[in-house]
Amino acid sequence: MADANSIIIDLKFSRDEVVSALENAFPGRTVIDMGNPSSAWQDLSKAAYAVVWKPDPLLFKRATGLKAVFSGGAGVDHVMTTPDLPDVPVVRFVDRSLTDRMSEWVVWQCLHHLRHGFVYARQQERRTWAEVKRQPEARDVTVGVMGLGVLGADAAQKLKTMGFSVLGWSRRKKQLDGIETYDASDLEEFLARTDILVGLLPLTPETRGMFDRAIFEKLNRHGALGGPIFLNAGRGGSQVESDLIACLSDGTLKAASLDVFEREPLAVDSPLWAMENVVVTPHAAAASEVRALFRHVQEQISRIEAGKPLENIVDRSVGY
Amino acid sequence: MADANSIIIDLKFSRDEVVSALENAFPGRTVIDMGNPSSAWQDLSKAAYAVVWKPDPLLFKRATGLKAVFSGGAGVDHVMTTPDLPDVPVVRFVDRSLTDRMSEWVVWQCLHHLRHGFVYARQQERRTWAEVKRQPEARDVTVGVMGLGVLGADAAQKLKTMGFSVLGWSRRKKQLDGIETYDASDLEEFLARTDILVGLLPLTPETRGMFDRAIFEKLNRHGALGGPIFLNAGRGGSQVESDLIACLSDGTLKAASLDVFEREPLAVDSPLWAMENVVVTPHAAAASEVRALFRHVQEQISRIEAGKPLENIVDRSVGY
Ligand SMILES: NC(=O)c1ccc[n+]([C@@H]2O[C@H](COP(=O)([O-])OP(=O)(O)OC[C@H]3O[C@@H](n4cnc5c(N)ncnc54)[C@H](OP(=O)(O)O)[C@@H]3O)[C@@H](O)[C@H]2O)c1
Ligand SMILES: NC(=O)c1ccc[n+]([C@@H]2O[C@H](COP(=O)([O-])OP(=O)(O)OC[C@H]3O[C@@H](n4cnc5c(N)ncnc54)[C@H](OP(=O)(O)O)[C@@H]3O)[C@@H](O)[C@H]2O)c1
Repeated sequence: MADANSIIIDLKFSRDEVVSALENAFPGRTVIDMGNPSSAWQDLSKAAYAVVWKPDPLLFKRATGLKAVFSGGAGVDHVMTTPDLPDVPVVRFVDRSLTDRMSEWVVWQCLHHLRHGFVYARQQERRTWAEVKRQPEARDVTVGVMGLGVLGADAAQKLKTMGFSVLGWSRRKKQLDGIETYDASDLEEFLARTDILVGLLPLTPETRGMFDRAIFEKLNRHGALGGPIFLNAGRGGSQVESDLIACLSDGTLKAASLDVFEREPLAVDSPLWAMENVVVTPHAAAASEVRALFRHVQEQISRIEAGKPLENIVDRSVGY
Repeated sequence: MADANSIIIDLKFSRDEVVSALENAFPGRTVIDMGNPSSAWQDLSKAAYAVVWKPDPLLFKRATGLKAVFSGGAGVDHVMTTPDLPDVPVVRFVDRSLTDRMSEWVVWQCLHHLRHGFVYARQQERRTWAEVKRQPEARDVTVGVMGLGVLGADAAQKLKTMGFSVLGWSRRKKQLDGIETYDASDLEEFLARTDILVGLLPLTPETRGMFDRAIFEKLNRHGALGGPIFLNAGRGGSQVESDLIACLSDGTLKAASLDVFEREPLAVDSPLWAMENVVVTPHAAAASEVRALFRHVQEQISRIEAGKPLENIVDRSVGY
């Protein structure tokens, strides 16, 4: 029976992981795991907390007594767009492990493009021994990171350590050691200097469809890599895939690494899969570790119960 | 006419690069470029300096007045094994750009293995959307760097920044921030803890054939990546390729990234080209920038002429 002490778990993650992580999570609290068929008919009206990732569209109709909603990931677009979201704090998942993983992916892909990963893989297939003539070093290449939140700031700093020249861009201007930053009003100059554009933005009404031909055409066309490169590990809804495909075909973009897509899973007939200048990963840049997520939720609930303010609350006026 | 002020250039690098870099190099000094057919009959007996990469086997028979020999790369095995090497200082090439490039390659390849690069590339070919279940993060993986010289120390530190657990091993024990180090006597323990072995050793009589089955079998078999991985960007002569191929086939090694080979270019019929768990790059991890090389040689010659000691002299008793 759900009571005011109950917590709802509605996570479209790997079942095994959720079940196993739930074993020792939330001691002394009733847990209603929506992945469990028997939860379908439970009365959710008294439950105080919900931990969600792509929740059931009816969830908030049934769970009317919530005091806080916890996102299962760093992004909250799937929560903010769920019908009947109550007017209670929505809490993002912020976690060292998630941050580190995202930076691994970003640095990996920037190095792949810098070090001619596509060329060498193809040469290996053909058993061709040939050093690529033009090998810039990282400092000759400018990576522009769009979104300097928890993830973007860490990625920018690690790219810097690896030698890249790094620029950052965010709604409100940021201070980051060794990194030149721009605020939203300075987008043009930021793009004109950028060789590798890294998208680490949340999906909001403002960022939807932001990465389009107009943006790609403004990137630096005279950089050391011979053409601009686009990485996106924020949200697929921020990219206009038809523009992206066209720009990758006509040379406006030299290459791309994409972890996120307009619709996921990426459709089998998307041209992106087979493009020679595209890396596709299946929204795997920084998966939430379920145990870490439950620890973070438990911590935040303890804060509420101790009368302390929640951390990482979404600002509803901007949607992230 | 060669005089005591002359410098011999015998670099088996890209001709274009050498010719173009020579344009403004070594002002006021006679330059004898051995890549130039007309140099074949020159009297070299008076020349004081030679800058070499895989020099002509007869070079030191003809150039009998040398005061110092400069290696065109960080490695000097090709110099030390040239007949009639005179008993004068042999100077290694040490350069920020070379170091940065090597670390780019090492970090790139470690991330490729950590982040299941092979799996995702194959899935992309098959248009398969599937997150690899077991995704350790960098801190769950121990990279063991063999050779903690200029290159190994920098790579170790950058791997650490990227989150990896890092061990180091060298002839004489080193002190490196945040990195546990071993000296030559502790090889077994170092290997037993290592998930990704990175070879950054010079080729010397002691290191020749060092990476063999016996070494690969001692690596950690219970690590987060499901099997040990071998990277070599030092010298191919340090690896026993028949053992390497067998170990990559029978599961002793899970995967490898190789920039150097017993014989280069790698033979067209080497099985390494086509192995699904191997990355081959054509000795391109850290190419010497010819302009930077000439600047470094000019600097060292100025030191000699100012009566100062040369830097980065090879210790002939150990061969590097
Ligand atoms: N692919 C994956 O596996 C994966 C995993 C985790 C997260 N993600 C995605 O990554 C996103 C970023 O995560 P985070 O933790 O870094 O978020 P965050 O801390 O909320 O940071 C968001 C950043 O984007 C900026 N921003 C938002 N809207 C903007 C706009 N309209 N114009 C300019 N800048 C804007 C923000 O600017 P201010 O600094 O001025 O607020 C902030 O710098 C998440 O929202 C999620 O969608 C993807
Ligand atoms: N693939 C490429 O593109 C590329 C480019 C440049 C260089 N390289 C190779 O990389 C090598 C390393 O360069 P570096 O500048 O780092 O050289 P370095 O500064 O001379 O360092 C060599 C390291 O190896 C260790 N070492 C040597 N012999 C050893 C032995 N028998 N047992 C244990 N440790 C031993 C040394 O130990 P101590 O510290 O005790 O002396 C030192 O830590 C070069 O020799 C070259 O062959 C490859």
